[in-house]
Amino acid sequence: MKFEILKTDGKARAGKLETGHGVVETPVFMPVGTQGSVKAIEHRELEGIGAGIILGNTYHLYLRPGTELIRTAGGLHNFIGWKRTILTDSGGYQVFSLNDLRTIEEKGVTFKSHLDGSVHVFTPETVVGIQRELGSDVMMVLDECAPFPCDREYASKSNELTVRWAERCKGEFERSKPLYGHSQALFGIVQGSIYPDLREQSVRSLVGMEFDGYAIGGLAVGESAGEMYRMLEITEPFLPREKPRYLMGVGTPVNLLEAVGRGIDMFDCVLPTRNGRNAYLFTRHGSLNLRNSKYKTDLTPPDAKCDCYTCTHFSRAYLRHLFLVREIVGLQLATIHNLSFYLWLMQQARAAVFEKRYDVWKRSMLSQLEPDESVMSLN
Amino acid sequence: MKFEILKTDGKARAGKLETGHGVVETPVFMPVGTQGSVKAIEHRELEGIGAGIILGNTYHLYLRPGTELIRTAGGLHNFIGWKRTILTDSGGYQVFSLNDLRTIEEKGVTFKSHLDGSVHVFTPETVVGIQRELGSDVMMVLDECAPFPCDREYASKSNELTVRWAERCKGEFERSKPLYGHSQALFGIVQGSIYPDLREQSVRSLVGMEFDGYAIGGLAVGESAGEMYRMLEITEPFLPREKPRYLMGVGTPVNLLEAVGRGIDMFDCVLPTRNGRNAYLFTRHGSLNLRNSKYKTDLTPPDAKCDCYTCTHFSRAYLRHLFLVREIVGLQLATIHNLSFYLWLMQQARAAVFEKRYDVWKRSMLSQLEPDESVMSLN
Repeated sequence: MKFEILKTDGKARAGKLETGHGVVETPVFMPVGTQGSVKAIEHRELEGIGAGIILGNTYHLYLRPGTELIRTAGGLHNFIGWKRTILTDSGGYQVFSLNDLRTIEEKGVTFKSHLDGSVHVFTPETVVGIQRELGSDVMMVLDECAPFPCDREYASKSNELTVRWAERCKGEFERSKPLYGHSQALFGIVQGSIYPDLREQSVRSLVGMEFDGYAIGGLAVGESAGEMYRMLEITEPFLPREKPRYLMGVGTPVNLLEAVGRGIDMFDCVLPTRNGRNAYLFTRHGSLNLRNSKYKTDLTPPDAKCDCYTCTHFSRAYLRHLFLVREIVGLQLATIHNLSFYLWLMQQARAAVFEKRYDVWKRSMLSQLEPDESVMSLN
Repeated sequence: MKFEILKTDGKARAGKLETGHGVVETPVFMPVGTQGSVKAIEHRELEGIGAGIILGNTYHLYLRPGTELIRTAGGLHNFIGWKRTILTDSGGYQVFSLNDLRTIEEKGVTFKSHLDGSVHVFTPETVVGIQRELGSDVMMVLDECAPFPCDREYASKSNELTVRWAERCKGEFERSKPLYGHSQALFGIVQGSIYPDLREQSVRSLVGMEFDGYAIGGLAVGESAGEMYRMLEITEPFLPREKPRYLMGVGTPVNLLEAVGRGIDMFDCVLPTRNGRNAYLFTRHGSLNLRNSKYKTDLTPPDAKCDCYTCTHFSRAYLRHLFLVREIVGLQLATIHNLSFYLWLMQQARAAVFEKRYDVWKRSMLSQLEPDESVMSLN
């Protein structure tokens, strides 16, 4: 994996991430394809709207369809038929959210499958091993994503464990090799809840291990947007300039713009896809809830300035009808639009960095986006 | 509407139906878009696989989103953004299947909405009027689709009423005009259950009224395939050669081939879309139930000879995975394949008519298709 910063404007960065499966322009939003499919949108449609990278999830894919089949198929790219870049989350977040079904120990985490109750163990080493078998272009370390709120003592111990696990992941990464002829990168994950000193301790330790990139995890879990931005500001100065930075699980369009302005390059979130399936559309002028009766006879497109398939062919009234009568195509068209909008937003942010007017552009965009932002909050 | 027979081979016909929204090559399979959307497939995808005509349903669209909105939008084509030909069913079939919620009288049928219990009346005149407002290229008369089995007396009375209603529909059709600048055709519907003399009486009466085309209704409702084919054989000689013939609600691939061989030009059925959403795929070699564990590690395409998006990009094992984890894209890919297969089958049938080898081709195709046909039966 190669990463290059092409331009900066303040903290904001415009870059280029190159993997064995193509070039990804940053800042970038990565659609979430947990189980090997981004919900309600076909791969060719993702390519059509310019998605260069999607996510998969190690926990989900390990359980279904299982690593063995994916290996037989020649890796996740082959199995799912996606030719561009894939990043796989380690599954730590999913395992830890199982609560009563898991036990954390130094060696790793023992958990029961949410599907059939079968018992499994993830260790830092096995999680890297599984991702080798998946063959994702970017792999993530196994981390504990601490709950929120989280007392200092728990956060501190959890953070130390995550750092030790990161080191073991790195060791396993160095001992093992890619299986499918393309290189794989490994990203570390900064934790530390909302404690500035723990965040600093986390990022310093991880940077010492020289990962290919750095994710910031444990945010957008219930804290305020202000606290999230503060954690970014605390972490960013310690991150090496030349490596990509990935803010995990974030967020709203406003969150993305604020985070790009604080030096983040990569994002993933279920918000555009999940909200789309709930009839919420993101637009340049805030959000639309298509179920609202005010759109009943509205024959204008969701976003008149958007050039996606949905906005250039269909009206709010038609989309509303599709949702009310529960037609699957409604989910498809809403997903196409929302992801198009997120990708467009990141392209615009990138262009603004190149033109050295990121802050001006961001303020202007925020003033359009914010009126309805509250309804779309992750929190 | 213009219809032209370009070639015949025995009873089988290859033709061309021209409407204000394009040319439809016959024999043709028409995907069902009851509520203004063919389930789980986008309009551009339908265009991509060569669909020239889709169905809408008067009953459903009248209730939701309602005729007023569609008229405001400039008709159904505009409202749903479909630029090619649309045929609307009258909704008779849906109204009569309401059973306890409807009363049939000479003037028409009074029914309660399946949605909110509100009371509505469909008469032959209002049903033509609604279809004028929808602006479909091909409209259907209001008929009573008799239940199956149906005693002779009921079938006879029902048939006479349907004929009187057909005459009133034709009268209203002649008194009214298209609203959107393109012409509209009206098809009559032959009924008569499985009583040969009633079928003959029905078709003779309707042909006397000079409709633009003739549908054969009341079949594939529970009778055997043999009985259905026999009814086609009884009806066909009375149908004018120069008008299109439409077998409503049929059927399996085998049914289509048998019916083309008996002089039918047009078909609609929910089977390819509904079965697709249930993980049943139609192929050149019979059907596949993707949930079957034998496909778990099958990395071959659903149908190796099919050139659809699904078959050229994805394996049975991946599609099976999508169904097991309930990913919406599984529904999309199965729908794309099944409709592609149905459209391909009709194109092949047409080519065989042009080459004057329809029977030979049909026998060869049936020997491939039949092994698994039973699992896909409508009955």
